[in-house]
Amino acid sequence: MFVKETRIRVRYAETDQMGFVYYGNYAQYFEVARVEALRELGISYKSLEESGIMMPVVHLNINYLKPIFYDDELRILTIVKKMPKVRMEFNYEIYNHNNVLVSSGETTLVFVDKKTMKPCHCPKWFLDLFEK
Amino acid sequence: MFVKETRIRVRYAETDQMGFVYYGNYAQYFEVARVEALRELGISYKSLEESGIMMPVVHLNINYLKPIFYDDELRILTIVKKMPKVRMEFNYEIYNHNNVLVSSGETTLVFVDKKTMKPCHCPKWFLDLFEK
Amino acid sequence: MFVKETRIRVRYAETDQMGFVYYGNYAQYFEVARVEALRELGISYKSLEESGIMMPVVHLNINYLKPIFYDDELRILTIVKKMPKVRMEFNYEIYNHNNVLVSSGETTLVFVDKKTMKPCHCPKWFLDLFEK
Amino acid sequence: MFVKETRIRVRYAETDQMGFVYYGNYAQYFEVARVEALRELGISYKSLEESGIMMPVVHLNINYLKPIFYDDELRILTIVKKMPKVRMEFNYEIYNHNNVLVSSGETTLVFVDKKTMKPCHCPKWFLDLFEK
Repeated sequence: MFVKETRIRVRYAETDQMGFVYYGNYAQYFEVARVEALRELGISYKSLEESGIMMPVVHLNINYLKPIFYDDELRILTIVKKMPKVRMEFNYEIYNHNNVLVSSGETTLVFVDKKTMKPCHCPKWFLDLFEK
Repeated sequence: MFVKETRIRVRYAETDQMGFVYYGNYAQYFEVARVEALRELGISYKSLEESGIMMPVVHLNINYLKPIFYDDELRILTIVKKMPKVRMEFNYEIYNHNNVLVSSGETTLVFVDKKTMKPCHCPKWFLDLFEK
Repeated sequence: MFVKETRIRVRYAETDQMGFVYYGNYAQYFEVARVEALRELGISYKSLEESGIMMPVVHLNINYLKPIFYDDELRILTIVKKMPKVRMEFNYEIYNHNNVLVSSGETTLVFVDKKTMKPCHCPKWFLDLFEK
Repeated sequence: MFVKETRIRVRYAETDQMGFVYYGNYAQYFEVARVEALRELGISYKSLEESGIMMPVVHLNINYLKPIFYDDELRILTIVKKMPKVRMEFNYEIYNHNNVLVSSGETTLVFVDKKTMKPCHCPKWFLDLFEK
């Protein structure tokens, strides 16, 4: 299991007329959080794609606990509990600047070979970096 | 229970470099689908907000079954199975132009009084239109 | 010269906490308007890309005259004044449901060969459909 | 005149199927750049709004010189050449990680009193911080 922390500042573009962040934009926060978490492990998602493997999302779940406001500096925990195989699950917790949990969620991603467009196993180098 | 159908054309802006619609943008499709479904019942979400009640989303769940491509004309079914009380649940099914189910999902929304920012009951006029 | 009209309903996602449509989202409206304008001429932008030619935007200009509000049904005029060569210029006028001009703008797009990634001439079949 | 520098990492969400950043998303980069530039002067845009003054954009101009790619770490210069009055003009230059100028642009914003919704003068405390 690993836990990584990322910080994101809320953009004006991400709010809606309710005065909160639009519910669809949390998916972007999760994306940034998991990409930065992988980067800390030494895994560049960009390089992974360039090597011929991409990781589309097959499942998303989000709980909206408290509103998120413009200009807030969010702290996002990315949690991976299980070793990736063909699928990789990420859990997320978003905290606002008052350290209140404002959202939690999960995504499931699948390793896909870009040439065949078929699911494939997590590459060995990825697993090795992950195990460290 | 009611089922309504809405059509949406995929915008270029909604795709990402994988060549599919970005996973976060499905939330917008669900938004358009439920707003249009309510409109068919005679309920304008805009008017609801102007009357002092808003409906933030408290839970989102999406299954990504097949990729969605640029310029596809999607058919989205919005399904409501239970009478709304303080919460209202919507189910969605997205079909592509070949009539293949490409995604399913759910959202839960809460009726909130804009003045007190507290949850409240679904207004009677809303329920009446809904029951018809 | 040709003028085509497209209608777009403003999504909640497109507003920001000012209560208006976010200034960056007008670019999507222009995209939809020009794609639908081309479609009326018999030109599918999707097919153009599949044939090996894409049209990235190289210049954007937008005047924000009046705010655009949630749920408004916009009427967008797409105007092409000059025959496309290597570049193609589109002008846009956005009218709200009260028929008030709320925005005007221009984009310049370039025909680019996807293989060489170099600018190229507008294809003959495109010009032919355009001249009709 | 002042010049401030901001760094932004390109999100996957911001790309489109051309493999570049979608042209409409540059407006968000400009937003982040000018908000961070003001913050360095001691001006919080959020606080400005809370004090009753907002700054909608009335004009946007963008030149797309080179494509911007996923995961690139952009360096954005925000340049203000003239003292703000009722309007405030920002110029932007976006450089990629190879220090190549990939985009330039301008925005004009107007100071607006949120109560009257009329244009107003730049507040004195804003000007004071700006002059320092």
